[in-house]
Formats: sequence, C-alpha cells, structure tokens
Amino acid sequence: MSFEPLIEKIAQKKNPTVMGLDPVLDYIPAFMKDAAVSQYGDTFKAAGEAIFAFNKALIDAAADLIPAVKPQSAFYEMYGIEGMIALERTIAYAKEAGLYVILDVKRNDIGNTAEAYAKAFLGETQLFSSKAQATPVDCVTVNPYLGIDGIEPFVKAAAQYDKSMFILVKTSNKSSGDFQDMDMGGLPLYRRVGAKVEEWGEVYRAASGYSPCGAVVGATYPKQLTELREALPHTFFLIPGYGAQGGAAKDIAGAFDAKGQGAIVNSSRALMCAYKKAGDDGSNLAKHTRDAVIAMRDDINAVL
Amino acid sequence: MSFEPLIEKIAQKKNPTVMGLDPVLDYIPAFMKDAAVSQYGDTFKAAGEAIFAFNKALIDAAADLIPAVKPQSAFYEMYGIEGMIALERTIAYAKEAGLYVILDVKRNDIGNTAEAYAKAFLGETQLFSSKAQATPVDCVTVNPYLGIDGIEPFVKAAAQYDKSMFILVKTSNKSSGDFQDMDMGGLPLYRRVGAKVEEWGEVYRAASGYSPCGAVVGATYPKQLTELREALPHTFFLIPGYGAQGGAAKDIAGAFDAKGQGAIVNSSRALMCAYKKAGDDGSNLAKHTRDAVIAMRDDINAVL
Repeated sequence: MSFEPLIEKIAQKKNPTVMGLDPVLDYIPAFMKDAAVSQYGDTFKAAGEAIFAFNKALIDAAADLIPAVKPQSAFYEMYGIEGMIALERTIAYAKEAGLYVILDVKRNDIGNTAEAYAKAFLGETQLFSSKAQATPVDCVTVNPYLGIDGIEPFVKAAAQYDKSMFILVKTSNKSSGDFQDMDMGGLPLYRRVGAKVEEWGEVYRAASGYSPCGAVVGATYPKQLTELREALPHTFFLIPGYGAQGGAAKDIAGAFDAKGQGAIVNSSRALMCAYKKAGDDGSNLAKHTRDAVIAMRDDINAVL
Repeated sequence: MSFEPLIEKIAQKKNPTVMGLDPVLDYIPAFMKDAAVSQYGDTFKAAGEAIFAFNKALIDAAADLIPAVKPQSAFYEMYGIEGMIALERTIAYAKEAGLYVILDVKRNDIGNTAEAYAKAFLGETQLFSSKAQATPVDCVTVNPYLGIDGIEPFVKAAAQYDKSMFILVKTSNKSSGDFQDMDMGGLPLYRRVGAKVEEWGEVYRAASGYSPCGAVVGATYPKQLTELREALPHTFFLIPGYGAQGGAAKDIAGAFDAKGQGAIVNSSRALMCAYKKAGDDGSNLAKHTRDAVIAMRDDINAVL
C-alpha cells in the first residue's frame, strides 16, 4: 500500500537513496557505444541499445545496495520510439532486480486525460476485450498546476493498484521560485500545493503514516525542506538536487522524520558518471558505481 | 517564424480551429477495430493500428478544411510503444497533409531535462556523430510550474527551428482555479503566469506581433479569456474546452484580437465522434466529420 514497499526496501538496504537513470550518450562508456554503433550504425536504434546496456550495467552494479531507480523520461523520449523501448526494457530489468521504479514523467492534464496517463503508468489500459499494462511502474512524478482534477486519477489508480506518486511542490531548479515562492495570502505557492498534497492523500494513508501522495522537494532548498517536513507529516518526499546540482547531506537532514524515514534522495549524474570521475574507461564501472552509491548512502545516513 | 505558419494556414482556410486527435478505442468505428483485431488479436499492436486507421480517416476527411491537428499524447502513451508508434505515424501523416501539428504533451522539468524534451519535439537529438529528429512537431504544450528554467529550452528551440509552444495559463478544467485563481499580491496566479509568458517571448516576436510563446486558455472561462487577450497582446492562444467540455462560440469571441486573429480553438470529441452522433457506423465518417468541422468553423467565424 502506498509507499510501504519502498519504505521496506529502504529499511532492508539501510539506504534512503535512489539512482537516477538519465542516460545522456556522453555518460556511456565508449566501448558500449562502439558496440551499438558497429551493430546498428549512427541511429536511434544504436542509441537505445547503448542506453539499455549502460542502464543494465548500472543496475547490475547497484541493485543489492539501492532500494529504487528513477528513470527520467525526457532522456528516453529524446531518442524517439527506440528511446522508449530502452526505457521499457530498463523498467522491466529494474523490476526483475527487485527495485522500486519511480518513473520521472512530471505528467499532468485535465481529468480524463490525466486518467489516461494514470492508466499508462500506474493502472491498466482497456484493450478490445481485455486489460493490459502499458508502462507499469511503482510510482510517477506529477505536476500540480491543474489542481485536483489532474491529480485525482493518479490518486485513485495508486490506491487501486498499490502504487504511489510524487507531486511537484518545491522543485530543485534555480527558477523554481518564479511562481512557487510567490506569496498567496501569507504562504508561498509551494506551501499551498504542499497542503493540498497532504489533503489529497488523506483518506489513503497507510500503516507507515504516509499516503500515496508524495512530494518533490529539492535538496537545493534546505530551509523549505525542513519547513515542509513539519507542515506535511503524512507526505513522503523525493529529493532531487543532491550532488551534481549542489545539495549536500547536511542540507537534506531536515527532510527526514524523527525515525530517519519519510524521504528518498536522488542522485543521477554523480552515480552514473562515477567511473568517469575516477578516470576509468568503463572497464571497472561496477566497482566505481558501487563506491559512489556506498559513499552517498553513508554520507546521508550520517546525518540522520 | 513563431506562429506565422499557423496564422497563414488559418487565413488560407478561413478556419481558426484545430482538430484534437485523442483516440479512445470507444470512438473508433467497429469495422476499423475488427480489422485490427482480426490481424493482430486483442493486443496493443491492434490498438495502435486501429488508432492510426481512425486518425488517417479523420485527417483525410478534414485536411482541406482545417489548419492544424492536436494529438493528445496521453491517449497514445496509454497503449505503450505501439501507441507511440501510432502517434509518430499520425504526426507524419498530418505533416504530409500540410497540417500544422500541435503535440499536446504538457511537458516540463528542470533546465537540462526540459532541454531534452525540447530536443525531442522541437529540435534535434545528438546521436553518435550526427543529429536527428526524434518526434518532430510544429508546436508543443508546456507546463509553467518550474519557472523560466523549464521554459527557456523550449523558447530557444522554437526560435532556432521556427517552432512554437503553448504554455498553460488558465486551463479549461473545473479545478483549474485550485491554484491558478489564487490571489498573488492583487492578481491571480494565471495572470502572473500570463505576464511571464508575454515576457519570455518578447525578444522573439514575429511580423504578426505574436511571439513563439503562446498560452493555453480554456473556453470554459470566457471572462478570463477576454481579460487575458487584453493583458497579453503578443501571446497567441490555444483554446480547449469548446464543444464537449461546454464552451460555446460566444464564450470565446473575446479571445481573438481586433483582426479576428490570435487564437485557435480546439475540439476533439465533437469532431472525432461526429459520425457516431449522426447514428452512422463509420461508413460515412468523412461526410459527418466534414459537416462537424464546417459547423464549428462557421459557428466560430460568426462571432469574430
């Protein structure tokens, strides 16, 4: 129910972090790219193959250490159909490896369209005389701009299929304040959205105390993280912005609850490119990835 | 540049409307579904084939009457990879028919991720030693919640590749006011976003006076449409919510500028299901679709 499977995996692995899978071609070891190009040429197909080979190596390296992965849909969509095939293969591979899969799609739309998205990722699609799962994941990210109409189909699908979502509240980017920080009658917009997230999930709270409606709150805004943790006691947090985007462990300590739970911290580039940073050509990708995953885990556990 | 190609097509066809392509299986004539199922079984593949056959029939029926189509990505994503293939075929077919293609994806993310989306839909993707277009359309819909970081990559790609975008300002759904109508220091959020849209497009204004940064404003909020037309003189409007969602021609008159330009009105269900409403089994889909397209065109032109 809700985030319980994720909370359990975090506890098992003593690791409240998620590996982002945002596969830019530049991140991929040359030998993997060469293999794909020699087989499929300079094509989207080769890109998809190289991306999946890379993701597979990363998952193989880290699956026993991490509870979850978070593929970022944009970095697959930019390779068209072949990118989407690589995404589906990655999701399936991660699920087989026992990982919780958070698909970062930041979708939202008016009610019946949001319902189509909820079916695509959390629920089932009606075919001609049966139902089937299109791109089944455990959790998606969702944008709140359209209000409850655009959220409700995700909440219902999450409740029905034991899935979850993270709704954008205070994002990690520099300009997140353009609208999110603007005052709305004494509270900034991100607080108004946060309050709604707490409300939308209320009837679906699980044994952990958390509802299936989580929130995205950036590591780059430590003050807001602490403030939101207090204001939203039943809302699980996804925290991007640690590492490459500038957030440090001390910045995110306030995002966790009294039991050291209630949040998961994402890192993409720092983990995916650990082998590069070590000056390796990818021959020892597994070792460098594991070292980086362990360093991040220990860095964050130290402040809890 | 900017919306000029769309403005030109609207003028040529004397029709400021766009046909939404949101292909729910229920909308598709039984004979098209039967043909797909008999060939591919009760599968996503059959769904994709039926969807493309339906879209092709709709485009064939209406291409000489309408300037543009607007596929809604959610209704393709819910059929997985096969849905995405149907979407790509639909886009290519509409382009060949000379139509302006607005892809309704409502994407947004932090800067480098928004850049990946902008490449996917408006620009080009870097492969190994060449660039290629993933899902090339003329225009996309974009969500503003993350501020300028998440918009700028779309604006730059639009300027570089002569494309455009519609940014969500005041959406057509019932709960759009949850956040969009909340007061932010004397103006509602949708006005604050609208002002930013006007500002973001400022340096890229084309001969028509309109920038590549358009706005989504729902037909279901006539007062706000008129108010936004006055406040945002350089912002082209995409108007959903006419027809099935309840908006009438008189409700949207205020969205157009003094020359009767500056906006395009979407209808999906009312056009796609015109044959059904007429009690037809799809044998005369072309005639009924044309009649509905012409009725909508004339209904809207009558108030300009």
